Amino acid sequence: MYRRELLGPGSVDKISYTSSVMDDAEIFRYVIITLMVHVNELERVGVLRSDEAGRIRNALRDIWRGGYEPTRLTSYEDVHEYVEAELIRRLGSIGGWVGLGRSRNDHVATAIRLRLRDYLLDLVKTLIELRRTLLNKAIETADQLIIGSTHKQPAQVTTLGHYLLALDELTADFLSTLIHAYEVVDKSPLGTGPLAGVITPIDRVRETGELGFNGVVNNSIYATGSRYFALQTMSLVVSYLVEVGRFINNLEAWLMPQLNYVMADPSHLATSSIMPHKHNPATLEVFRARIGEAVGHLVAFYSIERPVEVGYQLDLQESTRHVWAIMRIAIEGLSILRDFIEGIRVNNDRVNEDISKYPITTAEYAEKVSISSHKPFRDVYNEVARSIRSGDIRSIMLSPLDVLSGKGNIGSPNPAQVRNEAMRRLSDVETISNWLLNNELKVKNVLRVLED
Amino acid sequence: MYRRELLGPGSVDKISYTSSVMDDAEIFRYVIITLMVHVNELERVGVLRSDEAGRIRNALRDIWRGGYEPTRLTSYEDVHEYVEAELIRRLGSIGGWVGLGRSRNDHVATAIRLRLRDYLLDLVKTLIELRRTLLNKAIETADQLIIGSTHKQPAQVTTLGHYLLALDELTADFLSTLIHAYEVVDKSPLGTGPLAGVITPIDRVRETGELGFNGVVNNSIYATGSRYFALQTMSLVVSYLVEVGRFINNLEAWLMPQLNYVMADPSHLATSSIMPHKHNPATLEVFRARIGEAVGHLVAFYSIERPVEVGYQLDLQESTRHVWAIMRIAIEGLSILRDFIEGIRVNNDRVNEDISKYPITTAEYAEKVSISSHKPFRDVYNEVARSIRSGDIRSIMLSPLDVLSGKGNIGSPNPAQVRNEAMRRLSDVETISNWLLNNELKVKNVLRVLED
Amino acid sequence: MYRRELLGPGSVDKISYTSSVMDDAEIFRYVIITLMVHVNELERVGVLRSDEAGRIRNALRDIWRGGYEPTRLTSYEDVHEYVEAELIRRLGSIGGWVGLGRSRNDHVATAIRLRLRDYLLDLVKTLIELRRTLLNKAIETADQLIIGSTHKQPAQVTTLGHYLLALDELTADFLSTLIHAYEVVDKSPLGTGPLAGVITPIDRVRETGELGFNGVVNNSIYATGSRYFALQTMSLVVSYLVEVGRFINNLEAWLMPQLNYVMADPSHLATSSIMPHKHNPATLEVFRARIGEAVGHLVAFYSIERPVEVGYQLDLQESTRHVWAIMRIAIEGLSILRDFIEGIRVNNDRVNEDISKYPITTAEYAEKVSISSHKPFRDVYNEVARSIRSGDIRSIMLSPLDVLSGKGNIGSPNPAQVRNEAMRRLSDVETISNWLLNNELKVKNVLRVLED
Amino acid sequence: MYRRELLGPGSVDKISYTSSVMDDAEIFRYVIITLMVHVNELERVGVLRSDEAGRIRNALRDIWRGGYEPTRLTSYEDVHEYVEAELIRRLGSIGGWVGLGRSRNDHVATAIRLRLRDYLLDLVKTLIELRRTLLNKAIETADQLIIGSTHKQPAQVTTLGHYLLALDELTADFLSTLIHAYEVVDKSPLGTGPLAGVITPIDRVRETGELGFNGVVNNSIYATGSRYFALQTMSLVVSYLVEVGRFINNLEAWLMPQLNYVMADPSHLATSSIMPHKHNPATLEVFRARIGEAVGHLVAFYSIERPVEVGYQLDLQESTRHVWAIMRIAIEGLSILRDFIEGIRVNNDRVNEDISKYPITTAEYAEKVSISSHKPFRDVYNEVARSIRSGDIRSIMLSPLDVLSGKGNIGSPNPAQVRNEAMRRLSDVETISNWLLNNELKVKNVLRVLED
Repeated sequence: MYRRELLGPGSVDKISYTSSVMDDAEIFRYVIITLMVHVNELERVGVLRSDEAGRIRNALRDIWRGGYEPTRLTSYEDVHEYVEAELIRRLGSIGGWVGLGRSRNDHVATAIRLRLRDYLLDLVKTLIELRRTLLNKAIETADQLIIGSTHKQPAQVTTLGHYLLALDELTADFLSTLIHAYEVVDKSPLGTGPLAGVITPIDRVRETGELGFNGVVNNSIYATGSRYFALQTMSLVVSYLVEVGRFINNLEAWLMPQLNYVMADPSHLATSSIMPHKHNPATLEVFRARIGEAVGHLVAFYSIERPVEVGYQLDLQESTRHVWAIMRIAIEGLSILRDFIEGIRVNNDRVNEDISKYPITTAEYAEKVSISSHKPFRDVYNEVARSIRSGDIRSIMLSPLDVLSGKGNIGSPNPAQVRNEAMRRLSDVETISNWLLNNELKVKNVLRVLED
Repeated sequence: MYRRELLGPGSVDKISYTSSVMDDAEIFRYVIITLMVHVNELERVGVLRSDEAGRIRNALRDIWRGGYEPTRLTSYEDVHEYVEAELIRRLGSIGGWVGLGRSRNDHVATAIRLRLRDYLLDLVKTLIELRRTLLNKAIETADQLIIGSTHKQPAQVTTLGHYLLALDELTADFLSTLIHAYEVVDKSPLGTGPLAGVITPIDRVRETGELGFNGVVNNSIYATGSRYFALQTMSLVVSYLVEVGRFINNLEAWLMPQLNYVMADPSHLATSSIMPHKHNPATLEVFRARIGEAVGHLVAFYSIERPVEVGYQLDLQESTRHVWAIMRIAIEGLSILRDFIEGIRVNNDRVNEDISKYPITTAEYAEKVSISSHKPFRDVYNEVARSIRSGDIRSIMLSPLDVLSGKGNIGSPNPAQVRNEAMRRLSDVETISNWLLNNELKVKNVLRVLED
Repeated sequence: MYRRELLGPGSVDKISYTSSVMDDAEIFRYVIITLMVHVNELERVGVLRSDEAGRIRNALRDIWRGGYEPTRLTSYEDVHEYVEAELIRRLGSIGGWVGLGRSRNDHVATAIRLRLRDYLLDLVKTLIELRRTLLNKAIETADQLIIGSTHKQPAQVTTLGHYLLALDELTADFLSTLIHAYEVVDKSPLGTGPLAGVITPIDRVRETGELGFNGVVNNSIYATGSRYFALQTMSLVVSYLVEVGRFINNLEAWLMPQLNYVMADPSHLATSSIMPHKHNPATLEVFRARIGEAVGHLVAFYSIERPVEVGYQLDLQESTRHVWAIMRIAIEGLSILRDFIEGIRVNNDRVNEDISKYPITTAEYAEKVSISSHKPFRDVYNEVARSIRSGDIRSIMLSPLDVLSGKGNIGSPNPAQVRNEAMRRLSDVETISNWLLNNELKVKNVLRVLED
Repeated sequence: MYRRELLGPGSVDKISYTSSVMDDAEIFRYVIITLMVHVNELERVGVLRSDEAGRIRNALRDIWRGGYEPTRLTSYEDVHEYVEAELIRRLGSIGGWVGLGRSRNDHVATAIRLRLRDYLLDLVKTLIELRRTLLNKAIETADQLIIGSTHKQPAQVTTLGHYLLALDELTADFLSTLIHAYEVVDKSPLGTGPLAGVITPIDRVRETGELGFNGVVNNSIYATGSRYFALQTMSLVVSYLVEVGRFINNLEAWLMPQLNYVMADPSHLATSSIMPHKHNPATLEVFRARIGEAVGHLVAFYSIERPVEVGYQLDLQESTRHVWAIMRIAIEGLSILRDFIEGIRVNNDRVNEDISKYPITTAEYAEKVSISSHKPFRDVYNEVARSIRSGDIRSIMLSPLDVLSGKGNIGSPNPAQVRNEAMRRLSDVETISNWLLNNELKVKNVLRVLED
C-alpha cells in the first residue's frame, strides 16, 4: 500500500521475505489498542470529528474481533499495513486518517513495550510462584541432609532446604533488578513519529495515561530507534536463566542412579526406546537446552544491532522475535522447574550411606581442632590430609547433625536458621506480589478499550 | 508408548514441553526412509520374514502418504514414537518389530544427516547461481568505476566488477571448505544403537549404500552422541554469512542518496508509512539482520552442547532446529542477494562527480613520482600530504582510467584482468556444478524407496 | 602448599596451566584487605590473641607494600596460596592461622565484589561525565541542523542537540538500572566458607561493615558458588555498549566526506600509510570493535558457566577476567567517546546544502496539508509520493526552521524544548553525582585498613 | 609518523588507545620477513638499487635481532609504523622506500596469515599426538569395561578403548576439514596495496614463493579487507573444542568419588584450602572453561565484523588477538588433555561393582529374546520394563563380556574390533604426519631470510 505510488508494485517474494506479519501475531492486540488511543487523541485535539473517530474505532474493534491469520497476510509488509489497508477497505479513504501524526516506528515501539509488559508481569508471577515453592519446600526439607559438592565432588554436609535457599536468593536478586528494568520498559514512545517527531499536536502524556504506562520516553530518536528497553531486560533474563541452569546440573547429578540422592516425580522422566531401564530427566534436559537457546537469542539480538544506526532500520524488526522467544523460554521453563522442585523427595538412605562413606566434615573437624587446641589451622589441615591419604578417615569424621547445628553464622545450613530465613523471605515475596497485583490491574484497564 | 510400563502414564503438559514433534516435520520424510532401510536390513539378515517386512513397508508408505500434522501429535515424544505407534495401530504388535536393533539415537542422527545433506546441496546450488551472477556481472561491469573505500572513506578508484570478484573469491573459498565439510556429513550412523551398538546382526555398509551415503561413521558412541557433523558445517556457513554481511554494508552505503553510486531494482526497496520520499533497502536490511540471527543460532548450538556429556542427552534434540534455521537463512538470503546484484546498475554520473571531487589517486600519484624520480616513497608521501592539507588537490590527481589500466599486478581492478579472471572462474564453477549434479542424483535415488 | 600432603608435589606445567596468579593482579589489594578483616574478626571472637593477630596484620601490610609480580608466582595456584605461603615464610606456622574459618571460595568472591565495586564506581563517574558533556553540548547545538536518517537514508530534519539527547536518555536509562544492579554487587559473602559455612564463630555482619558493604549475601552456597552479581551487571554494561555502538555508526556516516555533516577533532583521526588523503575515524572504529569484543567476553562468561554446578568449580576462576575486560572496555571507550563528542563541530554549510537537495520534510508537509484541508492522511501522502516520483520536490519542501519550531510534542527537536530538557536532566545528574560521592567515600574508608 | 603532515601531531592517549603494538608482538617476526621479501621484490623489479636494498635488509635484520618491547612503543600506531620509523632513524630517508607499493593493509594480512600458519601447524602436531595417545590407549584398554551413559544415566556396557575411539573419530573428522581450511589460509595477499592494488610492478607470484605460500589470494579487495581465512578456521577450531568439552563432562563424572570409574594422575588434581579431602579435577575444569572462552573469542570476532565494510577498517585490527587466543587455548588445552588421557587408569573393581548393580544390558537382552523367540521387539521390551519396575533385574542381566563379544556390527565396543580399528587409524595418522612434516619444512625455509 505504502510503496505503490513511489516505488510501484512490489514482488510477492521479496515482500514476503521482508514481511513481519508472522511475528506480528504477538503484537496484533496492542497494534489495535495503540491505534485506538491514537484515534482518540486525534479526536481530542480536534483533527478528527467524533463521527469519523467513532467509525474508525468501530472498524478497529471489528478487525480485532475478526482475529489475525498471518499466513493469509504475507503480501503485507507488516500488521500495520494490513490494519490500515483493512480500514480503508471497510471505510473508504477515511481509514487513511490513521496515518496522520503517526509512524510505524513509534507505533511498533509502543506495541512491543505493551506486549513485553505483559510478558514481564507473567514472568514476575512465575518467579513469585517459584519462590513460594522454594521457600515452603526449604522449610519442609530444612532437616533433610544432602551432600553438598564443589568441583562435582562431595564437599560438605548440608540440607536440601539450604540448597533451595540458594536458588531462592538468586531469584530474589534477579527480581529486584528486574523490577527496576521494568520501569524502563513501562514508558510510552507514542507520538514520536518516525524519528524527529510529528507536527500533529499530540499530547503524549495523555496517551501515556490511556496506555497505562508509568512514564514517557522523552527523545523521539531514542523512542523510535532504540530497543534498549528490551535488550537490557533480555540480558537480565538470560543471565538469570544461565545461573538457574547450574542448579539443573546439580539436580541432574543427584538423579544419577549412582548418587540417587533425590527422587523426581515420574512425570518429569522419560525412558529409552530400546533400553527399558532408563530414567532420563527429560524436562530438566529440555529446560537446560532452552536456556542455551536463550543465550543464542540474546546474541542474535546483539548481532542484529551491531551494524544498525540509531535511526530505525528494518534490521530491528528482526530482533523482536528473539524477545518473545526468550520470554517464553523463561516462563515455561521456570514453571516446569517449579513443578519439578515441588515433586522431589530426598532419598535419605542413600544420602546417609554416602555421608558415612566420604569424609565430608574435614573442614569442620580441622576448624574444631585448630580452635580447641589453639593450633594454626594449616598445621591441623596437613595432619588431616595425611590421615586421608593413609585411608584413616574414621577418626576425622564428625556427626553431620552436630556439624549443622553447630553452625551459627548467617546463611549456614543450620536447620533452624534455614527455616527462619525462609519465613522472613516469604513475607518479602508478599511485597512483590502486591506490586504485581497493582500492575496487572493497570494492564487490565488498558484492555477495556477493545470493548464497546 | 515407551514410558507406560516403566514410568506409568505421562503428563500431557510435560510431554508436550519435551516433545520434538513440531521440529520433526523437517525430518519426517527421512525418518520413514530410514525405517524402510532398517526393515529391509532386518529382512535381509533373516530376522523378519518377507511377509512381515512387506506389511511394515506398506504401512510405512501409507503413513508417509498420509502426511505429517505435528500440531495433532503433541502427546507423542517425537516423530519416532508417533510412527511406531501408528504402525502398531495399523498392523498390531507386528509393528513393534521396528524397535529391534535400533534406537532413536541412531535413527534420528541418520535422518538429520540425510536432511542436512539436502539443505547443503540446495546451498551449493544457490552458491553456484550466486557465483555465476557475480562473475557475469563482473564481466559486464569491469569498466564501471566505483569509489573504493576503506574506513568508510573514499580510498581508491576501482570498478564494480572488481568489487564483485572480491565477493566471488570469498564464495569460492567458502565453497571449497564446505564441500569437504559435506564429506563429514555424508556418512551413515545407522545401526549403532543407543550408544554402544546392538547385537542384531546389521550390515551397516549395506545400509550405507541404500541411504546413498558416501561412508560410515565408525564409532557407535560418536555416531549417536555427537552432532559435530552439523556443528562444524554450521560454523562455516555462519562465518561465510558474516563476511557476506560486510558487502551488504558497502551496498547500503552506496545506496545512500548522498552517494547514490548504484541503483537498486525498486522491488528491493520499501518506503515509509509517513515519509513518502524514503527508498529503504529493505531486503538487504532483512538479510543482514538474519545473518545476525544466524550468529545467534550458532551460539545457541554451542551453548546447548556445553553441559552435555558425549552419550546422547535430550538437550541435543533442541539443537537441531538451529541447524535448519541457519540453512534457511543462508539459502533464502543468498538468493535474495543474488537477485539484488543482478539488478543493480552503477550511477556513472554520480561516481564521476565524486571522483573529480575527492583525491582518491594519491597512492598511485605518490608511487609514480617516487619511482620516476627515484625518491624514497615516504618523502613523496609527505609532500602529497602537505598539498592536500593546503587544499591543493588538482595537481596530484591522476585520470582514473590511466590508473586502472596501469595496474598490472595480479588481482587488481584492471578491467582486462577482471574479465579474464572472471572467465577463468566461470570454468571452475562448472566443476563444482558437476559435483552437485552427481550428488543430487544420489539423493534422488534414495527417495525411490518411498515409491512402490 | 595445599596439595602437598594429600596429592604430593604438583607438576609445574599443570599448576601454571591452572593458576590464576596473572589475573589475580586485579584483586591483590582486596585479597589483602579481606584477609585483614578476617584476621580482625578472628581476634574479635577470641580465636586469635592480639599479638598473633597483630603480627599477621603487619606481615600482610608488608606483603602489600612489597607489591605483586605475578610472572614470578606461576608455581602458586593463585594469589591466596601465595599470600598464605608468604605469611608462613615470614612468620612461621602462625601464618597458617589465616586458613581458619575461611575458604578461597568465600574470600575470592569477596575480593571480586570489592574490585568490581571500584570498577562500577569508575564507570558511573565516566557516565556522569559523559552525560554532562552530552547535555552541555546539546544546549550548545540545539539549533544546529542535522539530517536525521532512518535506514541510512535522509529522513527528517533535526539538530545535533536532539541527537545527543537520545544518547543521553539511553545513558540515563542504563544508569538507573546499573545503580540497582550495584546493590546486588555491594553485599558481603565473607564468612561463608567453601560452600556450607564454617563453624568458626564469625560475625558476618561485623565484617560486612568493615568492608564497607551495604548488605550481606545470605546463603553460603549462593555466596560462594555464584557469580550472578557480576554476570547480570556485565550483561547490562554490554547491552548499553551495543546501543552506544549504534551512535558510532551514525557518527561514522556523518564523517564520510560525501556527507561531511560533522567535523572531528584531528586527534581522533588517523591516516593511511600509502594514501595521504585519508581521514580515518580511528578512535571510533576501535571503540566500536571493543564493544564487539565485550559481547564476546559476555558470551565467554555464559559459556563458562553452562556446564558448572552451583558449588564452586575452578571453571569460575576463568570467568573473572572477562568481567575486568568488559569494565575496562566500557570505561576507556566511553571516555574516548566523551572526548570525541566534546570536540565535534557541525558543518552547517554541508548540512544546509543537503537539506535543500533532499526532500526531508515530506512527513510534515503531508501532515500539514492533511490537517489544514481535512483530507485523510493517506490520500495526501499518495499525492506527495507522486510528486517525488515525478521529480517535483520543490513544491513539497518546508523550511527546516519552521518545521522544528512547529514541533510542540514532548521530545521533539524543537530547540527550546531540547534546551529545557537538557537543563532538567543536568539536575538529575547531580543526584547521581551525590550518590557516587557517598559511595566513593565508603570505599576510601575501607582502604585505610592497609595503612598503619 | 604518517599523520604528521596531514593531521598534525596526535594525542598520546588516543594513539595509545588505538595502537596495536601490544598485540603485534605475535607478528613482529613476520612483519620483518614480509618487509624483507618486499624489499627483495623492489630490487628485482629495478626500483631499488642493490646497495639500497642491501642496506635496508641489513637494518631490518638488526631491528629483528634487537627484539620487540611493545610497552616502550605505545606512541606508535602499530609495529609497521615503528619498523619504518626505526629504519628511517637508522638509515635516513632511504628507510622511507619501504612504503612504496605497499600498504599496511596487505602487509598485515600477510603477517597474520604467516603467523596463523605456524599456529595451525602446531595445532595439527598437537592433534596428531593426541590421536596417537588415544589410539594406543584404546588398544591398551579395549578390554577394560566402562559403564556407558546417556542422559547421565547408566545405559550400556562398553570399554574405555571404545570411548577413546569416539574422541579419536571426532578428531579425525576435524583434522580432515582443518587441513582443507589450511589451504585457504596458506595464500599470499602481498602486493595488493590498500584496497585496489598498487602501480609499482610487483610480481606477486614470485613473492608468494619466497613466503612459502601455496597460492595467491587473487582479488586485492578481498586480500586486504577480509579476515575470512581466519574466521572460518577459528569457527572450526571452536566447534571441535566444544565437542571435546563434552568428553570432559564424561571424565568429570567418572572422577566423582561416587562413580570412581577412572583414576587420574594426581598431577591433574588439586585440593581445597579448607577441606583436605578434596580431589578436584583442576586441569579438566580449566580446559573446559577455556573452551567456553574460545566460544567468546569467536563471538567477539563475529561481533567486530558485523558493522565493518569490506574495505579495511581499524575494527579488524581488534579481531586478530582473538585468533591467537583461540589457537593458544586449543594447543595448550589439547596437550593437557592428551597428558590426562595418557595417565588415566580404569578402576575395574568399581566398574564391575556397578555393572552388577544396574541393569545395563536390557537392550541386548530384549534384542536376544525378540530374535530367538521371533517375538516383536516392543512386546519383549514391555516385559522387560515390567520386570524392572517390579525390581526383578537379575533375570534380565547378561554377562558384559558376552554382550561385548557378541557385537559384530562395525563400530561396536567389541574389543577385537576396537583394536583393529585403532591399528587402522594409526596408519591414517602417519599420512597426516607426513603432510605436517612437508609443511613444517616449507615454513622453516622462509625463516632463513632473517639470517645473513
